[in-house]
Amino acid sequence: MDKPGISMIETISWQGGIDGEARIIDQTLLPDEFVIKSIRTKEDMWEAIKVLRVRGAPLIGCSAAYGVVLGMKGARGDLKALSKTAHEVCDYLATSRPTAVNLFWALGEMRKVADGFEGEGESAFKEALLSRAHEILEQDREMGRAIGRFGADLIPNGAACITHCNAGALATGGTGTALSLFYAAKEQGKTIRVFSDETRPLLQGSRLTAFELMRSGIDTTVIVDSAAAHAMRTQGISVAVVGADRIAANGDTANKIGTYQLAISAKRHEVQFIVAAPSSTFDLSIKSGDEIPIEERSSDEIVRGFGKLTAPADAKTFAPAFDVTPAELITAIVTEKGVISPVNEGNVRKIISHCRVPEIG
Amino acid sequence: MDKPGISMIETISWQGGIDGEARIIDQTLLPDEFVIKSIRTKEDMWEAIKVLRVRGAPLIGCSAAYGVVLGMKGARGDLKALSKTAHEVCDYLATSRPTAVNLFWALGEMRKVADGFEGEGESAFKEALLSRAHEILEQDREMGRAIGRFGADLIPNGAACITHCNAGALATGGTGTALSLFYAAKEQGKTIRVFSDETRPLLQGSRLTAFELMRSGIDTTVIVDSAAAHAMRTQGISVAVVGADRIAANGDTANKIGTYQLAISAKRHEVQFIVAAPSSTFDLSIKSGDEIPIEERSSDEIVRGFGKLTAPADAKTFAPAFDVTPAELITAIVTEKGVISPVNEGNVRKIISHCRVPEIG
Repeated sequence: MDKPGISMIETISWQGGIDGEARIIDQTLLPDEFVIKSIRTKEDMWEAIKVLRVRGAPLIGCSAAYGVVLGMKGARGDLKALSKTAHEVCDYLATSRPTAVNLFWALGEMRKVADGFEGEGESAFKEALLSRAHEILEQDREMGRAIGRFGADLIPNGAACITHCNAGALATGGTGTALSLFYAAKEQGKTIRVFSDETRPLLQGSRLTAFELMRSGIDTTVIVDSAAAHAMRTQGISVAVVGADRIAANGDTANKIGTYQLAISAKRHEVQFIVAAPSSTFDLSIKSGDEIPIEERSSDEIVRGFGKLTAPADAKTFAPAFDVTPAELITAIVTEKGVISPVNEGNVRKIISHCRVPEIG
Repeated sequence: MDKPGISMIETISWQGGIDGEARIIDQTLLPDEFVIKSIRTKEDMWEAIKVLRVRGAPLIGCSAAYGVVLGMKGARGDLKALSKTAHEVCDYLATSRPTAVNLFWALGEMRKVADGFEGEGESAFKEALLSRAHEILEQDREMGRAIGRFGADLIPNGAACITHCNAGALATGGTGTALSLFYAAKEQGKTIRVFSDETRPLLQGSRLTAFELMRSGIDTTVIVDSAAAHAMRTQGISVAVVGADRIAANGDTANKIGTYQLAISAKRHEVQFIVAAPSSTFDLSIKSGDEIPIEERSSDEIVRGFGKLTAPADAKTFAPAFDVTPAELITAIVTEKGVISPVNEGNVRKIISHCRVPEIG
């Protein structure tokens, strides 16, 4: 998809050289407004990550890498001083979203560049950092292309598909994970329709997935999450594609709350249930989904999710961020290294050979 | 539950005689404010029904009946004139929500009183109407008590339960249908916990069900709809109870969108799936759920549901109001006449012998 036949949004890009700027789509304004925001300082990038102008694990990694370049703009001194500054910038950016694994991974890559630099002069030092940031972004884009290539074969021409949350271009520097399959299928000339679960509580499906799919010309229909089974029964849906936050050695997959329920409905309706994720999402140190801890979110996301109270103010909530879909409900896991199907530990290990070291994702 | 051990809200009541007033809970203000509103004219009642200050099929019926009494306040003349006025009031109230079956049924009952009146004088005529309105409300309350009595036996002490939408006191003149089981179980001294699906798009679960359950002292937890399967897997839920909009002769049940998906998840987790509904909900002229037409709602409920845009303004939606849960997924249907279980046409006909004539709604 280097020369995509479809118009893709560019979630993040870099303009100019070492004194240039990053440009991001301000995702907090979607879907109301489509605004490309220039990010010129590390403080602006910190804020953009913090308040979710950029979100999604891979995209956060790319953003942080460029944030380091921005933070070095005014840096002067010898190599030791430059390296010290680079580490300070990394330390600073690391505080923007302290639970994002990809943030630390990308900053770690930038630290390695600073530590290992053997050239001369301020400019060369900064060029090396910028070059690594570009690589991180390009690696992310290639990841999306590869997942799309492998996964599109699983989507028949004319298929009605369904997805949950946003594992798309807006979560990465490229075409995303789950949504890459749709973009690649369209590129292959297939006609597809996609149903997008709105994905309560934060509505990434209606706000982001619908936005980016519609923008690329894919026939998109928004539904409330609880309508998925009825849509499968009545709308001819044959493929479900979702992303993943963490995948255990046996293929059990943690992803946005609601993924498990969607998988159960898919099973009943003989809908293929496909997980699309970079190989870095696998954590082979975890045997099964039972060992994956589930983060609990603030009740405000449920009861004040739209700026007004939608439940009694003192209502108790149960607000898991993720759930775990057991491998038996998953038809295939598509990675940038190939397709795992049927999903079991043996097949996972054939494709994925590392322990958890986020590579791009 | 004549003398309930739990504090029940009174969704509608009548104060005074033929020149009295109806008092309703203004449901448009829930859960922010709990306001009892006096309704003194037929126009006020028309408006209350129209804008959903009162909602839920049985409650609309009760409200319309009292609306007729309100509309007769100033009526003068001989029996013929009074009867003509009563019919005019009924015609007027019928325009408030023209698709509500219970509205027409209740107004039909009031017309019968007007047509069949054999007493003398304006007051006696109006008394007869008021008396019938009281009966309709009392019949509705008795329906809730009976459903609760039959159904509570299916709920073990200590059970964690789940429900969808609002089939409770706020939808009826009494304790409701689905929620009657919880109220009756509590009355029997059982300790229960209830998970309430928020129920997108209109959030009746978080706004109304959570409100009324919490008010009656039942331990209530609000979840997003897509978290139901995860909650079943991790929170020890053993019983699901929902209402019904229409039930076919074979037990297939149309109810709020999301009910089918909940039933599929219940099956996987061996959670009892109970439908609670008055016998008037059965339509024996319909063989199976395949024949039940599904109303499509406005896309605004999905994309502008909270007063702000949550999807691209031109996004397509698929917005069915209801879905159909096949009988095979339903453990039991609880009616005011008894429990149907296992759910099949033979057992339905043992309990339900009429064709569709809404009795209490």
